[in-house]
Amino acid sequence: MTEFIPPGTRWIELPAGFAMKRGGVLPQGRIAYETWGRRNAAGDNSILILTGLSPDAHAAASKDNPAPGWWEAMVGPGKAVDTTRWHVVCVNSLGSCKGSSGPASIDPGTGQPYRLAFPDVSIEDVADAAAHVLRALGIERLACVIGNSMGGMAALALLARHPGIARSHVNVSGAARALPFSIAIRSLQREAIRLDPAWNNGDYDDARYPESGMRMARKLGVITYRSALEWDGRFGRVRLDSDRRDDEDPFGLEFEVESYLEAHARRFVRNFDPNCYLYLSRCMDWFDIGESCGGTTAEGLAKIRVERALAIGVHTDILFPLQQQEEIADGLRAGGSAAEFLPLESPQGHDAFLVDFARFSPAIGGFLAAL
Amino acid sequence: MTEFIPPGTRWIELPAGFAMKRGGVLPQGRIAYETWGRRNAAGDNSILILTGLSPDAHAAASKDNPAPGWWEAMVGPGKAVDTTRWHVVCVNSLGSCKGSSGPASIDPGTGQPYRLAFPDVSIEDVADAAAHVLRALGIERLACVIGNSMGGMAALALLARHPGIARSHVNVSGAARALPFSIAIRSLQREAIRLDPAWNNGDYDDARYPESGMRMARKLGVITYRSALEWDGRFGRVRLDSDRRDDEDPFGLEFEVESYLEAHARRFVRNFDPNCYLYLSRCMDWFDIGESCGGTTAEGLAKIRVERALAIGVHTDILFPLQQQEEIADGLRAGGSAAEFLPLESPQGHDAFLVDFARFSPAIGGFLAAL
Repeated sequence: MTEFIPPGTRWIELPAGFAMKRGGVLPQGRIAYETWGRRNAAGDNSILILTGLSPDAHAAASKDNPAPGWWEAMVGPGKAVDTTRWHVVCVNSLGSCKGSSGPASIDPGTGQPYRLAFPDVSIEDVADAAAHVLRALGIERLACVIGNSMGGMAALALLARHPGIARSHVNVSGAARALPFSIAIRSLQREAIRLDPAWNNGDYDDARYPESGMRMARKLGVITYRSALEWDGRFGRVRLDSDRRDDEDPFGLEFEVESYLEAHARRFVRNFDPNCYLYLSRCMDWFDIGESCGGTTAEGLAKIRVERALAIGVHTDILFPLQQQEEIADGLRAGGSAAEFLPLESPQGHDAFLVDFARFSPAIGGFLAAL
Repeated sequence: MTEFIPPGTRWIELPAGFAMKRGGVLPQGRIAYETWGRRNAAGDNSILILTGLSPDAHAAASKDNPAPGWWEAMVGPGKAVDTTRWHVVCVNSLGSCKGSSGPASIDPGTGQPYRLAFPDVSIEDVADAAAHVLRALGIERLACVIGNSMGGMAALALLARHPGIARSHVNVSGAARALPFSIAIRSLQREAIRLDPAWNNGDYDDARYPESGMRMARKLGVITYRSALEWDGRFGRVRLDSDRRDDEDPFGLEFEVESYLEAHARRFVRNFDPNCYLYLSRCMDWFDIGESCGGTTAEGLAKIRVERALAIGVHTDILFPLQQQEEIADGLRAGGSAAEFLPLESPQGHDAFLVDFARFSPAIGGFLAAL
């Protein structure tokens, strides 16, 4: 069991006995976060970033951790999320292994990692934990909450459960509910991990680790994070050079696209805790802002009140397809928020917000500049 | 190692020393086939059906095997492929386990199954073996060759390698070459099987069988054979009834879509030989009619000559996307064939030709009726 905590991480303790939505209580827990920029005197310039499944709180370089962050191109002085104007907070999701409490954390009751004894994590818990961080930092009302992918789900839960917590919202390749195609993909990713004998019902260690299950899960993830269109142009039918092939293996890597998947998987497998992966993957399947609010998805969205909102999506996204961002914008607008839907012609699929800055910078930067 | 041979199957022996495209020779081999209808006096009413990866030659019920076939709704008296007019031949692909020679067949040299000692199978070999069946049956020229999915690849190879073998061609959800998204999916399916310790480098038996690898591969297949759109309407976020859930398993099946995948996988796992699956999956990755003909894909297609052709696809197909059928029609037209591209608005994805008969019957039936 390993946690992967970037240098410069700070923590906020959750209140003792933090109650989880699906039952269970965290006797003690903590949320990892980082901040950039400064709060202004009015205290009205804070932006919260809620992340996808795997990122940590290190969205961008900072004094305490000069390494580039996962959204380095978007967060910083003069960038779309301009830290000369905004005070930016990014939290690591509850249930993750990047500093916040989750299945890889030590259970104070036993001195051992929680593993599967960690209570079920829901998107609503991720949102409530983030809300606690804001309160602890003295932030009463955000200028904006930005949520990417899973973070887009968490942002909607945050807005619904903590009315008035933000003046505006940017939902990036997010969804108001999980739909069966993405549930099927995630279910299969979890099955790959669970089928690996080394997973051992969550009781693995570095020596006996569900490496092949994690590799399968990650490869399937990468396939659904990008797009066929991008890969046609990028890889086509190009073969690996002979020195990169194992001629002894009749089913070994042969095409560039296979090698690309393998490289992505290798980088991930030992850098994310498998149990945390299972927990966060499943919490996305459970999420529906409608079920969360006791009605339809549209009713759930219409209960949210922000002054302005922007839902951005990409037409090549097969995991959180464009209709889901349109649904968010329509639903927020029905509730009286000034919500805009912005489809982008990016070839990079669900991951576009992590790579296609030529399109995402002006979209998000323009929205924030007009606040 | 099991072969799955429907009753009523007939065989054509391949010539001794059948040479395979990628090297290797089959000392003796056979191709399973079935026929429907009667040849006319002119011998010009034969239609060949080339199948996707998994079907056998039993496309429709026959006197020798009254069980419904895998294309029962399409092949028969008065149906789209009208057996009162046409003499219809369907072959099981070389490399399969449904009667034709493949990795599950007995190697006459050893008396044991070939397993991975079976020579590499390419789409071109599947085509050449089918051409041999036609010659053996005395069919000089087909009225039409219909190829579905992988069979669409094989049909193009047949037409390119055996000029004049058919007057016309219907390509159903096929492709002139494998593209990286589908290569990635198939590579991952193969990896799931190969990672299963019970696969054991191809040396398994019924007692020690790569069941979980096959289950993963099939689930990933079903995900890519259907469409998100269909599943939104069909499953939405519906949960399984509590009596269909295993409350002891914290990551057990919860949503209807997960149960659907599980049921599909269970039906398949023990009904298709894992090594044959690996061989046929890989032969699709290798296929490019351009590489096959020593040029670009467009050049390969333009070398084919038929009087008329129809390339049909479905806008929700993510495995053989619509552009690939358009590419076929464009390429054939550039070669002088009267080729039509017909996109259908079917929600059922790649598998639509197996289920959406309301759209596929008139499309294929209309083409054949006008011949």
